[in-house]
Amino acid sequence: MSSDCLSSVKMFGGEQNRYQHRSNVLDCDMVYAVYLPPQAAEYRVPVVYYLSGLTCTDENFVTKAGAQCYAAEHGVAVVAPDTSPRGEGVADDPEGSYDMGLGAGFYLNATQAPWSAHYQMYDYIVSELPQVLAENCPQIDTDCAAIMGHSMGGHGALTIGLKNPERYVSLSAFSPIVAPTQCPWGKKAFTEYLGSNESDWAAYDTCALLASATEHRPILIDQGTADNFLEEQLKTPLITAASDAADYPVHVRMQHGYDHSYYFIASFMADHFRFHAKYLNAH
Amino acid sequence: MSSDCLSSVKMFGGEQNRYQHRSNVLDCDMVYAVYLPPQAAEYRVPVVYYLSGLTCTDENFVTKAGAQCYAAEHGVAVVAPDTSPRGEGVADDPEGSYDMGLGAGFYLNATQAPWSAHYQMYDYIVSELPQVLAENCPQIDTDCAAIMGHSMGGHGALTIGLKNPERYVSLSAFSPIVAPTQCPWGKKAFTEYLGSNESDWAAYDTCALLASATEHRPILIDQGTADNFLEEQLKTPLITAASDAADYPVHVRMQHGYDHSYYFIASFMADHFRFHAKYLNAH
Repeated sequence: MSSDCLSSVKMFGGEQNRYQHRSNVLDCDMVYAVYLPPQAAEYRVPVVYYLSGLTCTDENFVTKAGAQCYAAEHGVAVVAPDTSPRGEGVADDPEGSYDMGLGAGFYLNATQAPWSAHYQMYDYIVSELPQVLAENCPQIDTDCAAIMGHSMGGHGALTIGLKNPERYVSLSAFSPIVAPTQCPWGKKAFTEYLGSNESDWAAYDTCALLASATEHRPILIDQGTADNFLEEQLKTPLITAASDAADYPVHVRMQHGYDHSYYFIASFMADHFRFHAKYLNAH
Repeated sequence: MSSDCLSSVKMFGGEQNRYQHRSNVLDCDMVYAVYLPPQAAEYRVPVVYYLSGLTCTDENFVTKAGAQCYAAEHGVAVVAPDTSPRGEGVADDPEGSYDMGLGAGFYLNATQAPWSAHYQMYDYIVSELPQVLAENCPQIDTDCAAIMGHSMGGHGALTIGLKNPERYVSLSAFSPIVAPTQCPWGKKAFTEYLGSNESDWAAYDTCALLASATEHRPILIDQGTADNFLEEQLKTPLITAASDAADYPVHVRMQHGYDHSYYFIASFMADHFRFHAKYLNAH
Protein backbone atom coordinates (compact mmCIF):
# COMPACT_ATOMS: atom_id res chain seq x y z
CA MET A 1 0.00 0.00 0.00
CA SER A 2 3.00 2.32 -0.09
CA SER A 3 3.02 5.42 -2.33
CA ASP A 4 5.99 7.06 -4.06
CA CYS A 5 6.08 10.84 -4.01
CA LEU A 6 6.49 12.08 -7.59
CA SER A 7 6.56 15.78 -6.72
CA SER A 8 5.94 18.18 -3.85
CA VAL A 9 5.52 21.92 -4.33
CA LYS A 10 4.72 24.59 -1.76
CA MET A 11 1.42 26.36 -2.39
CA PHE A 12 -0.64 28.72 -0.23
CA GLY A 13 1.49 27.76 2.76
CA GLY A 14 0.79 24.05 2.30
CA GLU A 15 1.97 21.35 -0.09
CA GLN A 16 0.69 20.24 -3.47
CA ASN A 17 1.91 16.66 -3.72
CA ARG A 18 1.65 13.95 -6.36
CA TYR A 19 1.94 10.25 -5.55
CA GLN A 20 2.10 6.95 -7.45
CA HIS A 21 1.07 3.61 -6.01
CA ARG A 22 0.14 0.08 -7.02
CA SER A 23 -3.62 -0.36 -6.87
CA ASN A 24 -4.74 -3.86 -5.97
CA VAL A 25 -8.34 -3.08 -6.80
CA LEU A 26 -7.53 -1.73 -10.26
CA ASP A 27 -4.56 -4.04 -10.83
CA CYS A 28 -2.40 -1.23 -12.21
CA ASP A 29 -0.23 1.69 -11.11
CA MET A 30 -2.19 4.84 -10.27
CA VAL A 31 -1.32 8.46 -9.63
CA TYR A 32 -3.20 10.74 -7.23
CA ALA A 33 -2.75 14.34 -6.12
CA VAL A 34 -3.02 15.60 -2.54
CA TYR A 35 -3.12 19.19 -1.36
CA LEU A 36 -2.19 19.46 2.30
CA PRO A 37 -3.18 22.82 3.81
CA PRO A 38 -0.82 24.60 6.23
CA GLN A 39 -2.99 23.43 9.15
CA ALA A 40 -1.87 19.84 8.44
CA ALA A 41 1.46 20.69 10.08
CA GLU A 42 -0.42 21.29 13.34
CA TYR A 43 -3.25 18.74 13.46
CA ARG A 44 -5.06 16.11 11.39
CA VAL A 45 -7.23 17.79 8.78
CA PRO A 46 -10.44 16.62 7.09
CA VAL A 47 -10.45 15.78 3.38
CA VAL A 48 -12.45 16.60 0.28
CA TYR A 49 -12.24 14.16 -2.63
CA TYR A 50 -12.47 15.76 -6.06
CA LEU A 51 -13.48 13.50 -8.97
CA SER A 52 -12.68 14.83 -12.45
CA GLY A 53 -14.60 14.52 -15.68
CA LEU A 54 -14.09 12.77 -19.01
CA THR A 55 -10.54 12.93 -20.50
CA CYS A 56 -9.02 14.31 -17.28
CA THR A 57 -6.20 12.96 -15.14
CA ASP A 58 -5.31 13.98 -11.59
CA GLU A 59 -3.70 17.13 -13.01
CA ASN A 60 -6.53 19.20 -14.51
CA PHE A 61 -8.09 20.04 -11.17
CA VAL A 62 -4.75 20.77 -9.54
CA THR A 63 -3.64 23.29 -12.16
CA LYS A 64 -6.94 24.88 -13.20
CA ALA A 65 -9.56 24.87 -10.44
CA GLY A 66 -7.96 27.37 -8.07
CA ALA A 67 -9.09 25.26 -5.12
CA GLN A 68 -5.93 25.23 -2.99
CA CYS A 69 -6.57 28.81 -1.92
CA TYR A 70 -9.86 27.82 -0.28
CA ALA A 71 -8.52 24.50 1.05
CA ALA A 72 -5.83 26.50 2.85
CA GLU A 73 -8.40 28.98 4.13
CA HIS A 74 -10.60 26.27 5.62
CA GLY A 75 -7.87 23.82 6.66
CA VAL A 76 -9.05 20.98 4.43
CA ALA A 77 -6.95 18.52 2.40
CA VAL A 78 -7.98 17.84 -1.20
CA VAL A 79 -7.42 14.52 -2.94
CA ALA A 80 -7.73 14.27 -6.73
CA PRO A 81 -7.48 10.75 -8.18
CA ASP A 82 -7.25 9.80 -11.84
CA THR A 83 -10.44 9.12 -13.83
CA SER A 84 -9.77 5.51 -14.87
CA PRO A 85 -7.24 2.70 -14.52
CA ARG A 86 -4.14 3.33 -16.62
CA GLY A 87 -1.20 1.64 -18.27
CA GLU A 88 -0.28 -1.16 -20.66
CA GLY A 89 -2.77 -3.99 -20.56
CA VAL A 90 -5.69 -1.83 -19.44
CA ALA A 91 -8.53 -2.06 -21.96
CA ASP A 92 -9.38 1.05 -23.94
CA ASP A 93 -12.11 1.90 -26.41
CA PRO A 94 -11.07 0.38 -29.77
CA GLU A 95 -12.32 3.51 -31.53
CA GLY A 96 -10.36 5.72 -29.14
CA SER A 97 -13.42 7.75 -28.21
CA TYR A 98 -13.13 10.16 -25.29
CA ASP A 99 -16.18 8.87 -23.46
CA MET A 100 -15.26 5.18 -22.98
CA GLY A 101 -12.21 3.43 -21.58
CA LEU A 102 -9.13 5.38 -20.52
CA GLY A 103 -10.09 8.69 -18.91
CA ALA A 104 -13.72 7.58 -18.71
CA GLY A 105 -14.06 5.13 -15.82
CA PHE A 106 -17.45 6.49 -14.69
CA TYR A 107 -16.64 5.64 -11.05
CA LEU A 108 -18.35 2.24 -11.18
CA ASN A 109 -17.36 -1.44 -10.90
CA ALA A 110 -17.44 -2.92 -14.39
CA THR A 111 -18.93 -6.40 -14.66
CA GLN A 112 -18.35 -7.01 -18.38
CA ALA A 113 -15.24 -8.20 -20.24
CA PRO A 114 -12.79 -6.76 -21.09
CA TRP A 115 -13.52 -3.88 -18.69
CA SER A 116 -14.04 -5.82 -15.47
CA ALA A 117 -10.34 -6.76 -15.20
CA HIS A 118 -9.33 -3.19 -14.27
CA TYR A 119 -12.32 -0.83 -14.31
CA GLN A 120 -13.28 -0.96 -10.62
CA MET A 121 -13.16 2.76 -9.92
CA TYR A 122 -16.05 2.65 -7.45
CA ASP A 123 -14.20 0.32 -5.08
CA TYR A 124 -11.00 2.26 -5.69
CA ILE A 125 -12.50 5.59 -4.59
CA VAL A 126 -14.68 4.27 -1.76
CA SER A 127 -12.34 1.70 -0.21
CA GLU A 128 -8.78 1.49 -1.47
CA LEU A 129 -7.84 5.14 -1.86
CA PRO A 130 -8.83 6.10 1.72
CA GLN A 131 -6.68 3.22 3.02
CA VAL A 132 -3.76 4.30 0.86
CA LEU A 133 -4.17 7.85 2.16
CA ALA A 134 -4.42 6.78 5.78
CA GLU A 135 -1.09 5.04 5.41
CA ASN A 136 0.66 7.64 3.25
CA CYS A 137 -0.74 10.88 4.66
CA PRO A 138 -1.24 10.53 8.41
CA GLN A 139 -1.91 14.30 8.49
CA ILE A 140 -5.32 13.52 6.95
CA ASP A 141 -8.28 12.33 9.01
CA THR A 142 -9.81 10.01 6.41
CA ASP A 143 -12.79 9.42 8.68
CA CYS A 144 -13.85 13.02 8.13
CA ALA A 145 -14.50 13.31 4.40
CA ALA A 146 -16.64 15.09 1.82
CA ILE A 147 -16.82 14.45 -1.91
CA MET A 148 -17.22 16.64 -4.98
CA GLY A 149 -16.68 16.39 -8.71
CA HIS A 150 -17.27 17.74 -12.20
CA SER A 151 -19.39 16.30 -15.01
CA MET A 152 -18.62 12.52 -15.05
CA GLY A 153 -16.91 13.22 -11.72
CA GLY A 154 -20.01 15.02 -10.48
CA HIS A 155 -21.90 11.82 -11.28
CA GLY A 156 -19.19 9.93 -9.39
CA ALA A 157 -19.32 12.19 -6.34
CA LEU A 158 -23.11 12.11 -6.09
CA THR A 159 -23.54 8.35 -6.63
CA ILE A 160 -20.66 7.43 -4.32
CA GLY A 161 -21.88 9.87 -1.69
CA LEU A 162 -25.48 8.68 -1.89
CA LYS A 163 -24.44 5.03 -1.61
CA ASN A 164 -22.13 5.69 1.36
CA PRO A 165 -23.70 8.36 3.58
CA GLU A 166 -21.65 7.09 6.53
CA ARG A 167 -18.43 7.95 4.70
CA TYR A 168 -19.09 11.48 3.40
CA VAL A 169 -20.60 14.34 5.40
CA SER A 170 -21.54 16.41 2.34
CA LEU A 171 -21.66 16.08 -1.45
CA SER A 172 -21.33 18.64 -4.22
CA ALA A 173 -20.98 18.75 -7.97
CA PHE A 174 -20.32 21.05 -10.88
CA SER A 175 -22.26 20.21 -14.07
CA PRO A 176 -22.93 16.59 -13.04
CA ILE A 177 -24.39 13.85 -15.19
CA VAL A 178 -27.40 13.36 -12.90
CA ALA A 179 -29.13 10.59 -14.83
CA PRO A 180 -26.61 8.51 -16.79
CA THR A 181 -29.27 5.88 -17.51
CA GLN A 182 -31.12 8.52 -19.54
CA CYS A 183 -28.32 10.22 -21.56
CA PRO A 184 -26.03 9.11 -24.43
CA TRP A 185 -22.77 9.25 -22.41
CA GLY A 186 -24.24 7.10 -19.65
CA LYS A 187 -26.09 4.65 -21.88
CA LYS A 188 -22.95 3.99 -23.93
CA ALA A 189 -20.68 3.56 -20.89
CA PHE A 190 -23.14 1.53 -18.81
CA THR A 191 -23.88 -0.84 -21.71
CA GLU A 192 -20.17 -1.53 -22.08
CA TYR A 193 -19.22 -1.63 -18.40
CA LEU A 194 -22.39 -3.13 -16.87
CA GLY A 195 -24.03 -4.96 -19.76
CA SER A 196 -27.30 -4.41 -21.56
CA ASN A 197 -29.58 -5.34 -18.66
CA GLU A 198 -30.75 -1.86 -17.71
CA SER A 199 -31.95 -2.96 -14.28
CA ASP A 200 -28.27 -3.19 -13.29
CA TRP A 201 -27.73 0.46 -14.12
CA ALA A 202 -29.83 2.12 -11.39
CA ALA A 203 -27.14 1.38 -8.78
CA TYR A 204 -25.05 4.12 -10.44
CA ASP A 205 -27.72 6.68 -11.29
CA THR A 206 -28.02 9.73 -9.03
CA CYS A 207 -31.71 10.30 -9.70
CA ALA A 208 -32.51 6.64 -8.97
CA LEU A 209 -30.36 6.63 -5.82
CA LEU A 210 -32.11 9.74 -4.46
CA ALA A 211 -35.39 7.83 -4.57
CA SER A 212 -34.05 4.94 -2.51
CA ALA A 213 -31.89 6.92 -0.05
CA THR A 214 -32.78 6.48 3.59
CA GLU A 215 -30.13 8.74 5.11
CA HIS A 216 -29.84 12.30 3.79
CA ARG A 217 -26.70 14.41 3.34
CA PRO A 218 -26.47 18.05 2.26
CA ILE A 219 -26.01 18.30 -1.52
CA LEU A 220 -24.96 21.37 -3.54
CA ILE A 221 -24.99 21.44 -7.35
CA ASP A 222 -23.88 24.27 -9.66
CA GLN A 223 -24.82 24.11 -13.32
CA GLY A 224 -24.07 26.69 -16.02
CA THR A 225 -26.93 27.70 -18.31
CA ALA A 226 -24.52 28.11 -21.27
CA ASP A 227 -23.15 24.57 -20.87
CA ASN A 228 -23.25 22.85 -24.29
CA PHE A 229 -23.90 19.49 -22.64
CA LEU A 230 -26.80 20.61 -20.46
CA GLU A 231 -29.70 19.52 -22.58
CA GLU A 232 -28.48 16.26 -24.09
CA GLN A 233 -26.17 14.83 -21.43
CA LEU A 234 -26.51 16.51 -18.05
CA LYS A 235 -30.29 16.93 -17.86
CA THR A 236 -30.21 18.92 -14.63
CA PRO A 237 -34.02 19.31 -14.41
CA LEU A 238 -34.25 15.55 -13.77
CA ILE A 239 -32.52 15.87 -10.41
CA THR A 240 -34.80 18.65 -9.29
CA ALA A 241 -37.77 16.42 -10.10
CA ALA A 242 -36.16 13.41 -8.40
CA SER A 243 -35.32 15.50 -5.35
CA ASP A 244 -38.93 16.68 -5.05
CA ALA A 245 -40.34 13.19 -5.62
CA ALA A 246 -38.02 11.61 -3.05
CA ASP A 247 -38.37 14.47 -0.56
CA TYR A 248 -34.57 14.57 -0.47
CA PRO A 249 -33.43 18.23 -0.51
CA VAL A 250 -30.83 19.04 -3.18
CA HIS A 251 -29.65 22.63 -3.65
CA VAL A 252 -29.41 23.12 -7.43
CA ARG A 253 -28.13 26.51 -8.60
CA MET A 254 -28.47 27.36 -12.28
CA GLN A 255 -25.64 29.82 -13.00
CA HIS A 256 -26.51 32.20 -15.80
CA GLY A 257 -24.14 32.31 -18.77
CA TYR A 258 -21.52 29.85 -17.48
CA ASP A 259 -20.24 26.96 -19.58
CA HIS A 260 -18.82 23.48 -18.84
CA SER A 261 -15.18 24.55 -18.35
CA TYR A 262 -12.78 25.00 -15.45
CA TYR A 263 -13.44 28.75 -15.77
CA PHE A 264 -16.92 27.96 -14.48
CA ILE A 265 -15.62 25.58 -11.80
CA ALA A 266 -13.09 28.12 -10.53
CA SER A 267 -15.78 30.79 -10.34
CA PHE A 268 -17.79 28.88 -7.73
CA MET A 269 -15.10 26.82 -6.01
CA ALA A 270 -15.08 29.16 -3.00
CA ASP A 271 -18.76 28.39 -2.38
CA HIS A 272 -18.19 24.64 -2.55
CA PHE A 273 -15.36 24.76 -0.02
CA ARG A 274 -17.39 26.95 2.32
CA PHE A 275 -20.23 24.44 1.98
CA HIS A 276 -18.11 21.37 2.74
CA ALA A 277 -16.04 23.04 5.45
CA LYS A 278 -19.18 23.81 7.41
CA TYR A 279 -20.02 20.11 7.69
CA LEU A 280 -16.45 18.81 7.91
CA ASN A 281 -15.50 21.15 10.72
CA ALA A 282 -18.70 20.34 12.63
CA HIS A 283 -17.97 16.62 12.33
CA MET B 1 -6.04 47.58 -35.66
CA SER B 2 -9.14 45.39 -35.43
CA SER B 3 -9.10 42.21 -33.32
CA ASP B 4 -11.01 38.99 -33.89
CA CYS B 5 -12.52 37.34 -30.83
CA LEU B 6 -11.36 33.71 -30.70
CA SER B 7 -13.26 32.80 -27.54
CA SER B 8 -15.25 34.34 -24.71
CA VAL B 9 -16.07 32.48 -21.50
CA LYS B 10 -17.86 33.74 -18.41
CA MET B 11 -15.70 33.68 -15.28
CA PHE B 12 -16.21 35.22 -11.84
CA GLY B 13 -19.07 37.29 -13.21
CA GLY B 14 -16.88 38.78 -15.95
CA GLU B 15 -15.48 37.54 -19.26
CA GLN B 16 -12.27 35.72 -20.11
CA ASN B 17 -11.71 36.62 -23.75
CA ARG B 18 -9.07 35.73 -26.33
CA TYR B 19 -8.35 37.89 -29.37
CA GLN B 20 -6.22 37.69 -32.49
CA HIS B 21 -4.96 40.71 -34.42
CA ARG B 22 -2.41 41.76 -37.00
CA SER B 23 0.50 43.49 -35.29
CA ASN B 24 2.17 46.16 -37.40
CA VAL B 25 5.03 46.50 -34.96
CA LEU B 26 5.81 42.76 -34.93
CA ASP B 27 4.73 42.19 -38.53
CA CYS B 28 2.81 39.02 -37.66
CA ASP B 29 -0.51 37.84 -36.23
CA MET B 30 -0.66 37.91 -32.44
CA VAL B 31 -3.02 36.53 -29.82
CA TYR B 32 -3.77 38.21 -26.50
CA ALA B 33 -6.05 37.40 -23.58
CA VAL B 34 -8.25 39.89 -21.73
CA TYR B 35 -10.16 39.35 -18.52
CA LEU B 36 -12.94 41.88 -18.11
CA PRO B 37 -14.26 42.03 -14.54
CA PRO B 38 -18.01 42.37 -13.92
CA GLN B 39 -17.54 46.09 -13.17
CA ALA B 40 -16.64 46.63 -16.84
CA ALA B 41 -20.34 46.37 -17.64
CA GLU B 42 -20.92 49.48 -15.51
CA TYR B 43 -17.92 51.74 -16.07
CA ARG B 44 -14.44 51.87 -17.62
CA VAL B 45 -12.02 49.80 -15.57
CA PRO B 46 -8.25 50.12 -15.07
CA VAL B 47 -5.94 47.46 -16.47
CA VAL B 48 -3.05 45.30 -15.28
CA TYR B 49 -0.74 43.90 -17.95
CA TYR B 50 0.71 40.47 -17.14
CA LEU B 51 3.87 39.45 -18.99
CA SER B 52 4.67 35.73 -18.98
CA GLY B 53 7.99 33.93 -18.79
CA LEU B 54 10.06 31.77 -21.13
CA THR B 55 8.14 29.15 -23.18
CA CYS B 56 4.74 30.63 -22.28
CA THR B 57 1.96 31.89 -24.51
CA ASP B 58 -1.02 34.03 -23.50
CA GLU B 59 -2.64 30.91 -22.06
CA ASN B 60 -0.48 29.85 -19.10
CA PHE B 61 -1.43 32.80 -16.96
CA VAL B 62 -5.10 32.56 -17.86
CA THR B 63 -5.46 28.91 -16.88
CA LYS B 64 -3.02 28.60 -13.98
CA ALA B 65 -2.53 31.85 -12.04
CA GLY B 66 -5.95 32.11 -10.44
CA ALA B 67 -5.91 35.87 -11.00
CA GLN B 68 -9.40 36.46 -12.34
CA CYS B 69 -10.85 36.01 -8.86
CA TYR B 70 -8.88 39.04 -7.61
CA ALA B 71 -9.38 41.04 -10.78
CA ALA B 72 -13.13 40.65 -10.27
CA GLU B 73 -12.82 41.58 -6.61
CA HIS B 74 -10.95 44.81 -7.38
CA GLY B 75 -12.64 45.68 -10.66
CA VAL B 76 -9.50 45.54 -12.76
CA ALA B 77 -9.06 44.16 -16.29
CA VAL B 78 -6.08 41.88 -16.97
CA VAL B 79 -4.33 41.68 -20.32
CA ALA B 80 -1.95 38.79 -21.05
CA PRO B 81 -0.04 39.04 -24.34
CA ASP B 82 2.13 36.37 -25.93
CA THR B 83 5.87 36.24 -25.12
CA SER B 84 7.27 36.68 -28.65
CA PRO B 85 6.22 37.23 -32.24
CA ARG B 86 4.79 34.07 -33.81
CA GLY B 87 4.14 32.36 -37.09
CA GLU B 88 5.76 31.26 -40.33
CA GLY B 89 8.64 33.49 -41.29
CA VAL B 90 9.43 34.58 -37.72
CA ALA B 91 13.03 33.69 -36.86
CA ASP B 92 13.57 31.02 -34.21
CA ASP B 93 16.64 29.66 -32.50
CA PRO B 94 18.23 27.16 -34.93
CA GLU B 95 18.95 24.85 -32.00
CA GLY B 96 15.36 25.12 -30.81
CA SER B 97 16.40 26.14 -27.32
CA TYR B 98 13.70 27.38 -24.94
CA ASP B 99 15.51 30.60 -24.01
CA MET B 100 15.92 32.23 -27.44
CA GLY B 101 13.52 32.99 -30.28
CA LEU B 102 9.90 31.87 -30.15
CA GLY B 103 8.50 32.12 -26.62
CA ALA B 104 11.55 34.13 -25.53
CA GLY B 105 11.18 37.68 -26.82
CA PHE B 106 12.57 39.28 -23.65
CA TYR B 107 10.32 42.34 -24.13
CA LEU B 108 12.95 44.34 -26.01
CA ASN B 109 13.42 45.80 -29.51
CA ALA B 110 15.94 43.61 -31.33
CA THR B 111 18.50 45.45 -33.43
CA GLN B 112 20.31 42.45 -34.93
CA ALA B 113 19.41 40.26 -37.92
CA PRO B 114 17.50 38.03 -38.23
CA TRP B 115 15.67 39.03 -35.03
CA SER B 116 15.05 42.69 -35.74
CA ALA B 117 12.47 41.94 -38.45
CA HIS B 118 9.87 40.77 -35.91
CA TYR B 119 11.26 40.84 -32.35
CA GLN B 120 10.03 44.29 -31.25
CA MET B 121 8.18 43.21 -28.14
CA TYR B 122 9.06 46.38 -26.21
CA ASP B 123 7.24 48.62 -28.69
CA TYR B 124 4.44 46.10 -28.93
CA ILE B 125 3.73 46.11 -25.19
CA VAL B 126 4.33 49.82 -24.57
CA SER B 127 2.69 51.33 -27.65
CA GLU B 128 0.77 49.04 -29.98
CA LEU B 129 -1.09 46.78 -27.57
CA PRO B 130 -2.63 49.68 -25.59
CA GLN B 131 -3.88 51.19 -28.87
CA VAL B 132 -5.31 47.85 -29.97
CA LEU B 133 -7.03 47.53 -26.60
CA ALA B 134 -8.40 51.06 -26.66
CA GLU B 135 -10.06 50.26 -29.97
CA ASN B 136 -11.17 46.72 -29.20
CA CYS B 137 -12.10 46.98 -25.50
CA PRO B 138 -13.63 50.40 -24.82
CA GLN B 139 -14.57 49.09 -21.35
CA ILE B 140 -10.88 49.45 -20.43
CA ASP B 141 -9.33 52.76 -19.42
CA THR B 142 -5.90 52.18 -20.97
CA ASP B 143 -4.66 55.44 -19.43
CA CYS B 144 -4.90 53.81 -16.01
CA ALA B 145 -2.50 50.87 -16.11
CA ALA B 146 -0.17 48.80 -13.97
CA ILE B 147 2.22 46.08 -15.09
CA MET B 148 3.36 42.77 -13.65
CA GLY B 149 5.09 39.62 -14.84
CA HIS B 150 6.90 36.38 -14.06
CA SER B 151 10.58 35.50 -14.63
CA MET B 152 11.42 36.82 -18.13
CA GLY B 153 8.06 38.60 -17.88
CA GLY B 154 9.06 40.00 -14.49
CA HIS B 155 12.10 41.44 -16.24
CA GLY B 156 9.76 42.80 -18.90
CA ALA B 157 7.35 44.36 -16.42
CA LEU B 158 10.10 46.03 -14.39
CA THR B 159 12.10 47.37 -17.33
CA ILE B 160 9.04 48.58 -19.22
CA GLY B 161 7.62 50.15 -16.07
CA LEU B 162 10.88 51.85 -15.15
CA LYS B 163 11.31 53.27 -18.65
CA ASN B 164 7.73 54.54 -18.81
CA PRO B 165 6.70 55.80 -15.36
CA GLU B 166 4.04 58.01 -16.95
CA ARG B 167 2.29 54.91 -18.34
CA TYR B 168 2.17 52.57 -15.32
CA VAL B 169 1.15 53.54 -11.78
CA SER B 170 2.76 50.49 -10.14
CA LEU B 171 5.02 47.56 -11.04
CA SER B 172 5.30 44.05 -9.65
CA ALA B 173 7.04 40.80 -10.44
CA PHE B 174 7.25 37.17 -9.44
CA SER B 175 10.75 35.66 -9.68
CA PRO B 176 12.04 38.33 -12.10
CA ILE B 177 15.34 38.29 -13.96
CA VAL B 178 16.54 41.51 -12.32
CA ALA B 179 19.93 41.76 -14.00
CA PRO B 180 19.88 40.11 -17.44
CA THR B 181 23.25 41.66 -18.28
CA GLN B 182 24.74 39.54 -15.50
CA CYS B 183 23.12 36.10 -16.00
CA PRO B 184 23.34 33.38 -18.68
CA TRP B 185 19.73 33.75 -19.95
CA GLY B 186 20.16 37.49 -20.42
CA LYS B 187 23.67 37.43 -21.84
CA LYS B 188 22.67 34.85 -24.45
CA ALA B 189 19.48 36.67 -25.46
CA PHE B 190 20.96 40.18 -25.42
CA THR B 191 23.97 39.12 -27.50
CA GLU B 192 21.63 37.72 -30.14
CA TYR B 193 18.96 40.43 -30.06
CA LEU B 194 21.09 43.52 -29.28
CA GLY B 195 24.58 42.56 -30.45
CA SER B 196 27.79 42.05 -28.55
CA ASN B 197 28.29 45.69 -27.55
CA GLU B 198 27.35 45.40 -23.88
CA SER B 199 26.84 49.13 -23.49
CA ASP B 200 23.60 48.68 -25.48
CA TRP B 201 22.27 46.22 -22.93
CA ALA B 202 21.74 48.52 -19.93
CA ALA B 203 18.59 49.96 -21.50
CA TYR B 204 16.90 46.65 -20.72
CA ASP B 205 18.41 45.85 -17.32
CA THR B 206 16.27 46.50 -14.24
CA CYS B 207 19.21 47.08 -11.90
CA ALA B 208 20.77 49.57 -14.33
CA LEU B 209 17.45 51.34 -14.91
CA LEU B 210 16.87 51.76 -11.17
CA ALA B 211 20.12 53.73 -10.98
CA SER B 212 19.07 56.17 -13.69
CA ALA B 213 15.38 56.51 -12.77
CA THR B 214 14.24 60.04 -11.97
CA GLU B 215 10.59 59.30 -11.28
CA HIS B 216 9.73 56.57 -8.75
CA ARG B 217 6.84 54.11 -8.81
CA PRO B 218 5.89 51.56 -6.14
CA ILE B 219 7.49 48.17 -6.88
CA LEU B 220 6.65 44.80 -5.31
CA ILE B 221 8.71 41.66 -5.95
CA ASP B 222 8.07 38.13 -4.66
CA GLN B 223 10.82 35.54 -4.95
CA GLY B 224 10.75 31.93 -3.74
CA THR B 225 13.77 30.68 -1.81
CA ALA B 226 13.40 27.17 -3.33
CA ASP B 227 13.48 28.52 -6.89
CA ASN B 228 16.05 26.50 -8.89
CA PHE B 229 16.90 29.57 -10.98
CA LEU B 230 17.48 31.95 -8.09
CA GLU B 231 21.24 31.77 -7.82
CA GLU B 232 22.35 31.49 -11.43
CA GLN B 233 19.70 33.42 -13.36
CA LEU B 234 17.48 35.58 -11.16
CA LYS B 235 20.07 36.97 -8.74
CA THR B 236 17.52 38.74 -6.55
CA PRO B 237 20.13 40.18 -4.13
CA LEU B 238 21.35 42.41 -6.98
CA ILE B 239 18.11 44.39 -7.04
CA THR B 240 18.19 44.96 -3.30
CA ALA B 241 21.69 46.38 -3.67
CA ALA B 242 20.68 48.46 -6.70
CA SER B 243 17.61 49.74 -4.87
CA ASP B 244 19.73 50.83 -1.90
CA ALA B 245 22.41 52.41 -4.08
CA ALA B 246 19.85 54.34 -6.15
CA ASP B 247 17.71 55.26 -3.15
CA TYR B 248 14.76 53.86 -5.13
CA PRO B 249 12.56 51.82 -2.75
CA VAL B 250 11.74 48.31 -3.98
CA HIS B 251 9.77 45.93 -1.77
CA VAL B 252 11.45 42.53 -2.20
CA ARG B 253 9.86 39.63 -0.32
CA MET B 254 11.78 36.35 -0.13
CA GLN B 255 9.12 33.64 0.22
CA HIS B 256 10.43 30.63 2.12
CA GLY B 257 10.19 27.25 0.39
CA TYR B 258 8.45 28.40 -2.81
CA ASP B 259 9.69 27.44 -6.27
CA HIS B 260 9.51 29.03 -9.75
CA SER B 261 6.10 27.60 -10.75
CA TYR B 262 2.57 28.89 -11.13
CA TYR B 263 1.84 27.26 -7.76
CA PHE B 264 4.04 29.97 -6.29
CA ILE B 265 2.51 32.70 -8.44
CA ALA B 266 -1.03 31.68 -7.49
CA SER B 267 -0.10 31.70 -3.81
CA PHE B 268 0.71 35.43 -3.82
CA MET B 269 -1.47 36.73 -6.64
CA ALA B 270 -3.99 38.17 -4.16
CA ASP B 271 -1.26 40.39 -2.69
CA HIS B 272 -0.20 41.66 -6.12
CA PHE B 273 -3.74 42.61 -7.09
CA ARG B 274 -4.31 44.34 -3.75
CA PHE B 275 -1.04 46.24 -4.33
CA HIS B 276 -1.90 47.38 -7.85
CA ALA B 277 -5.56 48.10 -7.09
CA LYS B 278 -4.53 50.55 -4.39
CA TYR B 279 -2.67 52.71 -6.93
CA LEU B 280 -5.00 52.11 -9.89
CA ASN B 281 -8.10 53.05 -7.96
CA ALA B 282 -6.41 56.17 -6.54
CA HIS B 283 -5.41 57.24 -10.05
